Amino acid sequence: MNKRDRKTNMKKDQFNIPEGMIYLDGNSLGPLPVAASARVQKTLQDEWGKLLIKGWNEAGWMQQPSGVGDRVGALIGAPKGTVVLGDTLSIKVYQALAAALNMNPDRRIVLSDSGNFPTDLYMAEGLLDTIDKGHELKTVASQDIESALNEDVAVLMLTHVDYRSGRMYDMERLTAKAQSFGIVVIWDLAHSAGAMPVKIEKSNAEFAVGCTYKYLNGGPGAPAFIYVRSDLTDTVQPALSGWLGHSAPFAFEQKYRAGAGIERMRVGTPPIIQLASLEAALDIWDGVDLNDIRERSIALSELFIKEVEARCPQLKLASPRDPKERGSQVSFAFEEGYAVVQALIARDVVGDFRAPNIMRFGFTPLFIDEDYVLKAVQILEDIMTQSVWDNPQFKKRSAVT
Amino acid sequence: MNKRDRKTNMKKDQFNIPEGMIYLDGNSLGPLPVAASARVQKTLQDEWGKLLIKGWNEAGWMQQPSGVGDRVGALIGAPKGTVVLGDTLSIKVYQALAAALNMNPDRRIVLSDSGNFPTDLYMAEGLLDTIDKGHELKTVASQDIESALNEDVAVLMLTHVDYRSGRMYDMERLTAKAQSFGIVVIWDLAHSAGAMPVKIEKSNAEFAVGCTYKYLNGGPGAPAFIYVRSDLTDTVQPALSGWLGHSAPFAFEQKYRAGAGIERMRVGTPPIIQLASLEAALDIWDGVDLNDIRERSIALSELFIKEVEARCPQLKLASPRDPKERGSQVSFAFEEGYAVVQALIARDVVGDFRAPNIMRFGFTPLFIDEDYVLKAVQILEDIMTQSVWDNPQFKKRSAVT
Repeated sequence: MNKRDRKTNMKKDQFNIPEGMIYLDGNSLGPLPVAASARVQKTLQDEWGKLLIKGWNEAGWMQQPSGVGDRVGALIGAPKGTVVLGDTLSIKVYQALAAALNMNPDRRIVLSDSGNFPTDLYMAEGLLDTIDKGHELKTVASQDIESALNEDVAVLMLTHVDYRSGRMYDMERLTAKAQSFGIVVIWDLAHSAGAMPVKIEKSNAEFAVGCTYKYLNGGPGAPAFIYVRSDLTDTVQPALSGWLGHSAPFAFEQKYRAGAGIERMRVGTPPIIQLASLEAALDIWDGVDLNDIRERSIALSELFIKEVEARCPQLKLASPRDPKERGSQVSFAFEEGYAVVQALIARDVVGDFRAPNIMRFGFTPLFIDEDYVLKAVQILEDIMTQSVWDNPQFKKRSAVT
Repeated sequence: MNKRDRKTNMKKDQFNIPEGMIYLDGNSLGPLPVAASARVQKTLQDEWGKLLIKGWNEAGWMQQPSGVGDRVGALIGAPKGTVVLGDTLSIKVYQALAAALNMNPDRRIVLSDSGNFPTDLYMAEGLLDTIDKGHELKTVASQDIESALNEDVAVLMLTHVDYRSGRMYDMERLTAKAQSFGIVVIWDLAHSAGAMPVKIEKSNAEFAVGCTYKYLNGGPGAPAFIYVRSDLTDTVQPALSGWLGHSAPFAFEQKYRAGAGIERMRVGTPPIIQLASLEAALDIWDGVDLNDIRERSIALSELFIKEVEARCPQLKLASPRDPKERGSQVSFAFEEGYAVVQALIARDVVGDFRAPNIMRFGFTPLFIDEDYVLKAVQILEDIMTQSVWDNPQFKKRSAVT
């Protein structure tokens, strides 16, 4: 264990995590930053409360989506002016895919992997049905993506880090290979932003999308982001042509004219209260080196795997063994995984479950260290050896798993 | 002035409005409810902070969009299970229009009025470009809508109350006439919800959309809503087919299957912090009779018109004179309207300006009464008679007008 790194990255005092809880689910919903309450209060009381409608100008609300976009951009290797916040990740997927298809009008295949997060596939389905020109959403297993690339494919749309297994693609290499066939590339960074250094500009991908409520800790329902490669921001076609993406929103013109640069990817009125919370969360990232975060998250997940495999032989590693092929989460497969996760939660070790049999544990060095990992495995071992999970109370499913 | 009504509706102590400010812009952004801060804090500290990911189940976050939807529904005459919250109004327009076009696949005209709020027209443009099957977005003057209805029109998409003039359509009559030609009807209730009794179910319109940050006081960027007529909620086709509209979002199936009822109009992760603020705002509406609100708002706007016309002859009424044809705002046209509005704001009378020459004043009986109206006109008269607005400081345009 490297003492320097632990000191560098651990910022647990900047989060409100309940005493005793070991939170291994920052990959699903990041914890509350201590500063978020005051920041949100300021937006409510000093901005909305005092300025009312004038907040749009005087509190800078109108510029927040691109201002915060630049801050998120800094965490994913995107230059200023290429990232904007707004909407949900689902909407941003739709927006990116519509724009990407426009760039390849003669091709009909959208390629993704069958393990992609469902909403990405669902939104693609909805868009292709709407376009109704014989497009096909083709999904193959992740290991078959590369061989499925060819000149019939219009768009390659992938999630960088798999939400279930944590399997991570080589973004640069895949993008280059896809582009060699003239394919437009979209990366979903939901499980990457804040988890590791992402070099989206360097990857040369045309588009990326992501959310800010996981590793970035923006809060439940924090807005999504979209990245557009800088040479395209002034020409990309926004299908979701909302007024705040218009060149002159307050001229109230009849016809849509896309705004300059990344602003055109805005749609409607930005969620100012959510953005306030997100800004407080981003403050924590100031000065954090994502290379250090990555190094620490690998150390933590390696330790977790080693300990679980030694102490809980019933669980089977469902993530790549090579840390270079993994994101910042580790998954184990177990038929009764749902009940085990519930038993863990009952003992304040919070991971989550993804159907059909995946137990997920996220390692977020801002608030998790080796001591927590060891304690979590200790409790997991207790649960497994004593078959605690077999208690019917843990088998009853909640609406949200 | 009717004392009983003033007592019944005035709830100014439930809002944080700066001392001395006369806020006539609740039609653009409602003021901060006093209870919003505590409510948002509760969501941050007690829900996000203590429950973290468990908030989705244990704090009921996952059900909020339809739960709050029912509350908004009660204010627009919609039965339970027909309204859901989410996204922005622009996105909801897109969603409603896509669904509506699906119901009339053989027709090619989307009819709207040329004064419709631009984002409605822009989103329609974007959708029709995406569909790319020769649809036409036809806009005519509001008085020509009725004569433009015929069997070539697929969808009639109108904003009930005009954002500039306050002109209000007869929703029931127009819907019936449009439907007699087989036209599917979408109403945008942005300037209606919370301003007057809306009987959306009684109108028989297939769809309605609206926002919650105007008369409903949900806060900057509060989510939008969509209404689907109850006989259609189980069959309507969601083009924006996000995972939270799926029949079993947490089964993580590969294929989209639209959820039951209005849930299918959900798209992505709901904005929980914005929803908390909106819920506090909706508490104020509990027990308010919108018939009383309407009566009071007419009284206030009639008083305003009478006084302005008597005392500021330079200003020309740009709203219908008959209160039955107006929403809850009054507009006056004046070439230097922008500067006049700035001069008013400098004296703490907050209205707003809409290009090219419209000064808008919203009358919101929850926090505006006759005394405020008279004081506002007094200040407006000062500004006009002393040509205060002619000061160059008031002519310099802000980004947001």
